[in-house]
Amino acid sequence: MFQKDSCVLVNIGNHFDLKTSVFQAPRRGIYSFSFHVVKVYNRQTIQVNLMQNDYPVISAFAGDQDVTREAASNGVLLMVEREDRVYLKLERGTLMGGWKYSTFSGFLVFPL
Amino acid sequence: MFQKDSCVLVNIGNHFDLKTSVFQAPRRGIYSFSFHVVKVYNRQTIQVNLMQNDYPVISAFAGDQDVTREAASNGVLLMVEREDRVYLKLERGTLMGGWKYSTFSGFLVFPL
Amino acid sequence: MFQKDSCVLVNIGNHFDLKTSVFQAPRRGIYSFSFHVVKVYNRQTIQVNLMQNDYPVISAFAGDQDVTREAASNGVLLMVEREDRVYLKLERGTLMGGWKYSTFSGFLVFPL
Repeated sequence: MFQKDSCVLVNIGNHFDLKTSVFQAPRRGIYSFSFHVVKVYNRQTIQVNLMQNDYPVISAFAGDQDVTREAASNGVLLMVEREDRVYLKLERGTLMGGWKYSTFSGFLVFPL
Repeated sequence: MFQKDSCVLVNIGNHFDLKTSVFQAPRRGIYSFSFHVVKVYNRQTIQVNLMQNDYPVISAFAGDQDVTREAASNGVLLMVEREDRVYLKLERGTLMGGWKYSTFSGFLVFPL
Repeated sequence: MFQKDSCVLVNIGNHFDLKTSVFQAPRRGIYSFSFHVVKVYNRQTIQVNLMQNDYPVISAFAGDQDVTREAASNGVLLMVEREDRVYLKLERGTLMGGWKYSTFSGFLVFPL
């Protein structure tokens, strides 16, 4: 169980690596992941992928019109094997303002 | 517990009908549902309703300005009776690009 | 466990005060909170903060361009002490149409 953003962190079990922002599953099961990545003063479209190992699982987008703030959000239930790595990847665009206000959370719903 | 999108599917218990995209509750309890429906290259406003049996429970909207991609997202905790059906309904607008990138997830939080 | 919006309410344990819209934690643990606040026909930017006691934990934004409906959404896992209060605060802007279509949900993921 972990949750990352600019000021809050819950990291029960220490399975979320703060340095690389990668979650590594301690056990096999169904996990719930969700993320909200905020784009600030940026007219580029961004695409954020949730990656499981090296494969994109779901994507989210924030468009090119809003010049203030817009979020690329999505959530998913995933079957995860022990030691699978789950992380966010900015597939397209840039986050000039950094990851401020962005969140990435996950927890085990059901062990298998 | 289920999760539907264009390429990933978790369907523990087989209570989510792949053909009709309807979840039928195996038991009474509180369930968490969330959805992100993505509109692609479409200036129409869409309204997506989360339906419990034949009644809309919550709605989400994606506006008419963004011509690239925009998501109608929402989430809810619901008290669900055994055999209740829960599903998404596109109440307004069309999804010309289909349901690509859209997700719909749910799991039992608390049995009653 | 609670969930608030304009027409649905799950409030197992009665720890969500309907009058003040404040959740007070019955026990120490990790809670999942999420919210979707919908702005209707309003060109103002809104900022919604999720507050824990008197401190903002995360923020969400809805921009100034869409004149129909736009949602400020976010979600978080929080370590909550017994009797902590968790609630939403409209930090910037106004909700002329009220909180219609908006949701605020939370549940205990893991007791500590």
